[in-house]
Amino acid sequence: MFYYILIELTKLRKDDFMYTSKIVVRYAETDQMGIAHHSNYPVWFEVARTDFIKASGISYSDVEKAGIITPLTGLTVRYKQAAFYEDELSIHIKLTRLTPVRLEFSYEVIRENPRALIATGTTSHGMVSKDLVPVNVKKEHPKIYRMFEECMDN
Amino acid sequence: MFYYILIELTKLRKDDFMYTSKIVVRYAETDQMGIAHHSNYPVWFEVARTDFIKASGISYSDVEKAGIITPLTGLTVRYKQAAFYEDELSIHIKLTRLTPVRLEFSYEVIRENPRALIATGTTSHGMVSKDLVPVNVKKEHPKIYRMFEECMDN
Amino acid sequence: MFYYILIELTKLRKDDFMYTSKIVVRYAETDQMGIAHHSNYPVWFEVARTDFIKASGISYSDVEKAGIITPLTGLTVRYKQAAFYEDELSIHIKLTRLTPVRLEFSYEVIRENPRALIATGTTSHGMVSKDLVPVNVKKEHPKIYRMFEECMDN
Amino acid sequence: MFYYILIELTKLRKDDFMYTSKIVVRYAETDQMGIAHHSNYPVWFEVARTDFIKASGISYSDVEKAGIITPLTGLTVRYKQAAFYEDELSIHIKLTRLTPVRLEFSYEVIRENPRALIATGTTSHGMVSKDLVPVNVKKEHPKIYRMFEECMDN
Repeated sequence: MFYYILIELTKLRKDDFMYTSKIVVRYAETDQMGIAHHSNYPVWFEVARTDFIKASGISYSDVEKAGIITPLTGLTVRYKQAAFYEDELSIHIKLTRLTPVRLEFSYEVIRENPRALIATGTTSHGMVSKDLVPVNVKKEHPKIYRMFEECMDN
Repeated sequence: MFYYILIELTKLRKDDFMYTSKIVVRYAETDQMGIAHHSNYPVWFEVARTDFIKASGISYSDVEKAGIITPLTGLTVRYKQAAFYEDELSIHIKLTRLTPVRLEFSYEVIRENPRALIATGTTSHGMVSKDLVPVNVKKEHPKIYRMFEECMDN
Repeated sequence: MFYYILIELTKLRKDDFMYTSKIVVRYAETDQMGIAHHSNYPVWFEVARTDFIKASGISYSDVEKAGIITPLTGLTVRYKQAAFYEDELSIHIKLTRLTPVRLEFSYEVIRENPRALIATGTTSHGMVSKDLVPVNVKKEHPKIYRMFEECMDN
Repeated sequence: MFYYILIELTKLRKDDFMYTSKIVVRYAETDQMGIAHHSNYPVWFEVARTDFIKASGISYSDVEKAGIITPLTGLTVRYKQAAFYEDELSIHIKLTRLTPVRLEFSYEVIRENPRALIATGTTSHGMVSKDLVPVNVKKEHPKIYRMFEECMDN
């Protein structure tokens, strides 16, 4: 017997530079309601950000090595339907706002089978140094800023 | 040597029936930024909800035994300052909206020493049966509904 | 730009029916030491069990639908090296003991690049009904038991 | 209405310097079996270590500020009974082995009402610098080592 799972990260539509990460709901992520606990959604969003940034040509590890960290300043989630153990979910992400010191990403969580919109959400981020002081990334790390701009342009 | 920690849950102001739960940031809750990971805040909000509902005279376990579960429909968090390992945090909670089928709670996360507003947030909840069908709690569980009403009235 | 990640679950060696799941260390899984927190390893083991059981021809959701749950009775982990954010890890799993009422799985966590043995471990499980009463799976669910036996035989 | 919870950390028996931390099982810690997920036990052990070290007269934050971190090298858990949402659990901890470069702690998890031994366990730790190089704490940080020794002596 042979078995494999394909987890694919694809650029969905060229014009809005949206990416998709796929995750499978873990048993540890369920709660006694029998559904995926709501605190996992921000973690899944973060998995999608990691993939998105890596897909942009630079890994988030590299961003951190450049001395920039991007702590959340805001989070919103709209839970539409429950997700269940072993559900395969697509996390769509796009960069929806960019300033020299801030980022905002938007997300959609989709179950393919049976197809359903599970949740939508946003995360807002400051860009700061390791001691949590704001960094003007446009000025101080223009290469990284251009990378983010390209994500917006497309 | 003798040592103890007091974790206190108090009604802060009689007129708005606000409660406070205290938590200490766990090592496992930190991330490589050196701060409490943002996905813990919804978990802390939930700890406060558990305490709040228990303080109202009925435990959430009892609510679930009555066949009612309260999955999130919405979550917002505004992160103001980072929280760190071993920080003692007060999670203030109050019930800010109530309909026969919905609840909304509001939260403030405060560090006492040095004093800082760490975060604010809201959670919206449907009230549904165990198979995720909406329940009119006002009609079908008037005792539980009155308990929630009293939390609003005060 | 086009980008994808392949997550593959393969039968490594026919003679010991070992499977491999691949995971990528999530940011939320790191702690302020800058490494993956040790409490994630049992979660990764569980991801491997889910994949392993699914690969055996029946999903763990199906096992639960048959009324059998497999809570842990024992857990051991030997941590050899730290795992870091974005590390791609292979979780090797095999079924190493089987009785009519018990299972034991063994695990190896490997980083491919640079190659290192990150950790080894075991989990022991009882097989019980939903109200936590032991079930003789060999007698009461011979089809599921045979599935486990095949995993041992090979 | 007024309400509070007392969370107490006490030295149980003077002769073995055992400490107790109390935790309440969080909703997020449950899984779809309806019990506390097994991966929370190492987190609870860690809460007890934080309290234990603090009770020894130095906080773990201070240990980290001295440049020493104590990553796990080994973990064992024996799960005896399930723990449930809102259960109040006592985590007993004592230091059971000490060398100049290693620590081992032992744990018992007890539910008081109804009284039951929920789990036992151990954690083994290396003592290393922030770049994960072993430190001879007896030589290089004799004050911290004496603190650990006192925990053993009693």
